[in-house]
Amino acid sequence: MSSKKTIVGVMGPGSEVDEGILRIAFELGSLIASNGWILLTGGRNSGVMEAASKGAKFKGGLTMGILPDRNKFTISKFIDVPVITGMGSARNNINVLTSDIVVVCGMGAGTASEAALAIKAGKTVIFVGQSKTTMDFFNTLGGENVLRAEGPQKVIEEIKKILHI
Amino acid sequence: MSSKKTIVGVMGPGSEVDEGILRIAFELGSLIASNGWILLTGGRNSGVMEAASKGAKFKGGLTMGILPDRNKFTISKFIDVPVITGMGSARNNINVLTSDIVVVCGMGAGTASEAALAIKAGKTVIFVGQSKTTMDFFNTLGGENVLRAEGPQKVIEEIKKILHI
Amino acid sequence: MSSKKTIVGVMGPGSEVDEGILRIAFELGSLIASNGWILLTGGRNSGVMEAASKGAKFKGGLTMGILPDRNKFTISKFIDVPVITGMGSARNNINVLTSDIVVVCGMGAGTASEAALAIKAGKTVIFVGQSKTTMDFFNTLGGENVLRAEGPQKVIEEIKKILHI
Amino acid sequence: MSSKKTIVGVMGPGSEVDEGILRIAFELGSLIASNGWILLTGGRNSGVMEAASKGAKFKGGLTMGILPDRNKFTISKFIDVPVITGMGSARNNINVLTSDIVVVCGMGAGTASEAALAIKAGKTVIFVGQSKTTMDFFNTLGGENVLRAEGPQKVIEEIKKILHI
Repeated sequence: MSSKKTIVGVMGPGSEVDEGILRIAFELGSLIASNGWILLTGGRNSGVMEAASKGAKFKGGLTMGILPDRNKFTISKFIDVPVITGMGSARNNINVLTSDIVVVCGMGAGTASEAALAIKAGKTVIFVGQSKTTMDFFNTLGGENVLRAEGPQKVIEEIKKILHI
Repeated sequence: MSSKKTIVGVMGPGSEVDEGILRIAFELGSLIASNGWILLTGGRNSGVMEAASKGAKFKGGLTMGILPDRNKFTISKFIDVPVITGMGSARNNINVLTSDIVVVCGMGAGTASEAALAIKAGKTVIFVGQSKTTMDFFNTLGGENVLRAEGPQKVIEEIKKILHI
Repeated sequence: MSSKKTIVGVMGPGSEVDEGILRIAFELGSLIASNGWILLTGGRNSGVMEAASKGAKFKGGLTMGILPDRNKFTISKFIDVPVITGMGSARNNINVLTSDIVVVCGMGAGTASEAALAIKAGKTVIFVGQSKTTMDFFNTLGGENVLRAEGPQKVIEEIKKILHI
Repeated sequence: MSSKKTIVGVMGPGSEVDEGILRIAFELGSLIASNGWILLTGGRNSGVMEAASKGAKFKGGLTMGILPDRNKFTISKFIDVPVITGMGSARNNINVLTSDIVVVCGMGAGTASEAALAIKAGKTVIFVGQSKTTMDFFNTLGGENVLRAEGPQKVIEEIKKILHI
């Protein structure tokens, strides 16, 4: 039997994020930790990454962050396991390959690339807190791997269905 | 004075591409070569990558391909300079960082990630052969760096404006 | 205060490893876990990676593996947190950037690249189980960042000195 | 028939390089260009990279550089085709995968990683301007893929043998 733990990735923008999205991110982190899953984010100390990591640590979960830079000053203090890639946005592909399930919370250019890379890699992608314009576009790309959830609780329900628990 | 040549990237899907998009890709490659620019693609022997590279070689241009895999059997024969990354879709970020200007021709999950990474990197991105749904989405991400052109000739006109020639 | 845990990387070959090196690797993993540090390896189910990870899990430690491939069949079952890079040996640089301290146990072409990348990144590198030929070479590269230890216990003593504990 | 051109990689340090090594690098670049091959280097404006690229442009050859950073101020002005990876030393693996043959000229931590990654990837590696300590070490890693040449002319002779010309 493998030691492998379930890893749930939460992807979202680091800047220009509104309060509602940050609340969803915090709640997602909390719920992921409560379920005993590892939270994976982009690891930085801002936006959705910081909020989700803070939520997970609030519940005593394990957090990992896949950092774009070598600069240690941008790592969230809520990250237990920082993976230092030094490869900029190319690390976005590692974020999605490493996540068993990808949750997309909020939107921005980097986040869009992660959602698209996740679809390309055949991952199930659960969108939350998204506009109709965003969903219309990703629905053209992803087919049945693209799901939409109304809020954090619904995201967790979808994850449990996918993990058969 | 630098030896640096102008590099125009053409990003587009490798599969499930309709004939109209392939014709645009071929024409783009031809026009890029005719203008003395290097054509950069994802380097594979299918879809938009193959069509654009074929167009560029038809006019005697120089073609480079940033390949995802180490497998040499998927390299387009119209590529002069294959860059073998062995890093899968993480190479998409190299495609856009290396291109002075990014043209997005047709759409798919990999292509969407390249368009988003290009916007993230602050590149000007010219979309051609796109649906309204796609343009609506990328317009929310990219602001003034997102341009749309009606066809290959218009793409070239936009490039010349950006390069001030 | 940061949640960041101490990460000790153990780099070593996946194949053609002699028994003595495997024993050192197992012991290193055990001692790293006993000290409450995270063990980082290349994550595969062979050689030094497998032995060190097994040693760490034997003591209930947390293990992470930075995998080169997307293929899940080569992941060691003793890895709690597999990071799937899909980027082949380019992931070797992530191994060393992510490790607070790098231990090199045994030698091979991939391992040599990790030792050299670690020195390049300014990490302290502790060599164990090495020939005179290997040490002579890395001493020319690394200056005071290159240390040699007689066995696993001595490696741990060096790590504690570096961490000031 | 493929458009693919022969690419010869010259790997060497960017700093602390003595004059003799720089002369070898310049001569290597010149000879590679004279033979109609593309010169590949790490692309920076210093050390072996700069000297080899200058030599190749002196003979009108085509030069490509695989750059570690996004910063354009460190690109050699003798590079025609700069590939911007933004991934630091992880790009070293792209250098060797993209080269049909790897020449190692001078030594340093980054260069050592490239030599080791090339051996790992199964490339033929030709060493020039090396100490006995260096050769002793790489001979333990590389077996018959590790060659040593007395000077630039001998490197070219080895390349021709390998390319069967």
